Amino acid sequence: RINGDRLWDSLMEMAKIGPGVAGGNNRQTLTDEDAEGRALFQGWCEAAGCEMGLDSMGNMFATRPGTDPDALPVYVGSHLDTQPTGGKYDGVLGVLGGLEVVRTLNDLDVKTKHPIVVTNWTNEEGTRYAPAMLSSGVFAGVHEEDWAKARVDAKGKAFGDELKRIGWEGDEPVGQRKMHAFFELHIEQGPILEAEGKDIGIVTHGQGLWWLEVTLTGKDAHTGSTPMAMRVNAGLGMARITELVHRIAMENQPDAVGAIGQANVYPNSRNVIPGKAVFTVDFRSPDQAKLDGMRDRLEAEAPKIAEELGLGISIEAVGHFDPVTFDDGCVGALRSAAERLGYSHRDIISGAGHDACWINRVAPTAMVMCPCVDGLSHNEAEEISKDWASAGADVLLHAVVETAVV
Amino acid sequence: RINGDRLWDSLMEMAKIGPGVAGGNNRQTLTDEDAEGRALFQGWCEAAGCEMGLDSMGNMFATRPGTDPDALPVYVGSHLDTQPTGGKYDGVLGVLGGLEVVRTLNDLDVKTKHPIVVTNWTNEEGTRYAPAMLSSGVFAGVHEEDWAKARVDAKGKAFGDELKRIGWEGDEPVGQRKMHAFFELHIEQGPILEAEGKDIGIVTHGQGLWWLEVTLTGKDAHTGSTPMAMRVNAGLGMARITELVHRIAMENQPDAVGAIGQANVYPNSRNVIPGKAVFTVDFRSPDQAKLDGMRDRLEAEAPKIAEELGLGISIEAVGHFDPVTFDDGCVGALRSAAERLGYSHRDIISGAGHDACWINRVAPTAMVMCPCVDGLSHNEAEEISKDWASAGADVLLHAVVETAVV
Ligand SMILES: NC(=O)NCCC(=O)O
Ligand SMILES: NC(=O)NCCC(=O)O
Repeated sequence: RINGDRLWDSLMEMAKIGPGVAGGNNRQTLTDEDAEGRALFQGWCEAAGCEMGLDSMGNMFATRPGTDPDALPVYVGSHLDTQPTGGKYDGVLGVLGGLEVVRTLNDLDVKTKHPIVVTNWTNEEGTRYAPAMLSSGVFAGVHEEDWAKARVDAKGKAFGDELKRIGWEGDEPVGQRKMHAFFELHIEQGPILEAEGKDIGIVTHGQGLWWLEVTLTGKDAHTGSTPMAMRVNAGLGMARITELVHRIAMENQPDAVGAIGQANVYPNSRNVIPGKAVFTVDFRSPDQAKLDGMRDRLEAEAPKIAEELGLGISIEAVGHFDPVTFDDGCVGALRSAAERLGYSHRDIISGAGHDACWINRVAPTAMVMCPCVDGLSHNEAEEISKDWASAGADVLLHAVVETAVV
Repeated sequence: RINGDRLWDSLMEMAKIGPGVAGGNNRQTLTDEDAEGRALFQGWCEAAGCEMGLDSMGNMFATRPGTDPDALPVYVGSHLDTQPTGGKYDGVLGVLGGLEVVRTLNDLDVKTKHPIVVTNWTNEEGTRYAPAMLSSGVFAGVHEEDWAKARVDAKGKAFGDELKRIGWEGDEPVGQRKMHAFFELHIEQGPILEAEGKDIGIVTHGQGLWWLEVTLTGKDAHTGSTPMAMRVNAGLGMARITELVHRIAMENQPDAVGAIGQANVYPNSRNVIPGKAVFTVDFRSPDQAKLDGMRDRLEAEAPKIAEELGLGISIEAVGHFDPVTFDDGCVGALRSAAERLGYSHRDIISGAGHDACWINRVAPTAMVMCPCVDGLSHNEAEEISKDWASAGADVLLHAVVETAVV
């Protein structure tokens, strides 16, 4: 079993970097805080006898050597970046859980045939730079590296420039590493495990996603002196499309969700009718037909709303992944680990996207989840118990060792 | 008649300060650009033989002496601050039109019994600091100076601190000046004069306004892993209230408008259901009962929308003025000036708020308007012709002189 206190202390230590305003974290990707978090992680890895690799997307790889020089490594990890008002565990648990696996193997002086590599993937959250899971996506060959590095944040700063600025661009080419397997531990970010009193979720599938960035173009005009009939109000169009997104999701129940998380009107002045609105629709479903059907409906109906109001409209896909089915062998290794350890468990579908969803395309992959309080995540109040974290890391340890010894 | 070329050149010269991104201006109140615009105006006033006064709200008063030491001055002016994506004429025409009156009287060597004072009122636009017409409001005793100086912008910077920072806080107490009359020239900011081919609008009334800042409180949560039934989506609430505001305005036609110009969701991340939304409703009508009725309906119905979604709601009035009736004598002076000069004219109601609306409470006041292309204002594409500007300033000149000689 892993050392639950040590894991917890490391989580709390990492959470001191980039504190939020309400007990959580704001350690967004490629900020100074991200750099500080990376340095802390690197120090811990080196103290645990690992050697750190760094690729040109800033992905970090801490290797604990194996006994067979020809054996491919077993990878384990997640991400250290957070939402602007994020929690202390989303991503971080998976990285430090991986480190705890290595520390435990060191304590027990266990050698494995396959090396074990603890990984921190750059920009999983996708808030500062869309899409999410950007660098695991480049690793898996889903995105071109040049395209990824040219992504800009809301202030116009390019990913590539910011990665250089914080000093975490490596020399290693992206995606050349071959993996024996990849395991990711993550908090559920949903309410199911807690509600059913289960210690462990064995993730068999992941929902697919569409992020559709909509731009509406109207006419800036004075809110006081412009007659109602002369208005071309992009804010009103955004409101109607917000309602449409909600309706589409509700009509696809169960197994579908939809919302708008990012929404901006311009020039955003009290007495100016918005001449422009830019916002991102987030649709998800584990069912491919539903997922694509929701996108199709938005693309059919939003332009009608725009037309009625005289607005110009463009819709651009800025993030996408299909529903995912994880590797049977890796899923089985996690399930039997939970069983062997005596933890209550159930199979579960991941509602969120994860680096594992991309890595699944290039290596046998699976995920294990632990509950979180009230299913709350992407919220500074995100919370888990030390026991939940320990159970998840225990299952990770057993599955990793089982996979790495043979 | 005034010198139309000189007036136009001054307008173009001022427009070089704080250029926008699309041919207009971004010279928001109490920015470095505002300071630069003030300095340019002061230089011009001094070159025209005026002495500059400055009160503790940053209001500027350039005095051309009269012949009777006991005669109260005739004031004329408007504001030099602009919207973030504003035009070159909104406000500026009224200030530089006033200066052109002085310059013309100098050219003709005309002396008036009453002094003439050209005024630039601080923070008319209300974008950076709500409410609009803040400093003319303090002058007229509508707001307390301490309250006004404690207003903060979106970055938390206080009005009083920013006024000091740009170096334009004067020693003169606010509101002690007594006025014989106040005249303001302004562009219409609406489509009526141009559509009817009139040179001049004689403003008899002004619409009243309510600015209602609404805050909705929900729960930040993950867009992917939070089931639809568990969401408390402040963005969806904002969308429904946006539609409500539109409906209320449409049901009060004619003589009513309503829109939301400023709208923000938090944390504004693609994969976070907004846990908070803050936005400002702008309702206006020249009819007091309609104006207050629209506010009452919002305050009755918005909380129902919030309740249905499980959202907390608060509504705060951050700007208000009642419908205004301008002074018969001043209105008559403008009307007979237009008549005498042979300009086509009509009476008009101002759709926007103006410094004149507040000054009307403490002095005989009226306004004159010139057309603007397509009725467009609060837009960088705001445009007027040199002839329109000249006609407006001509009428101003005649009304001011008529009022200042006797
Ligand atoms: N786990 C997680 O929150 N990932 C971010 C990508 C997503 O929005 O699903
Ligand atoms: N004239 C003008 O645009 N004033 C700003 C105050 C308002 O919104 O009416």
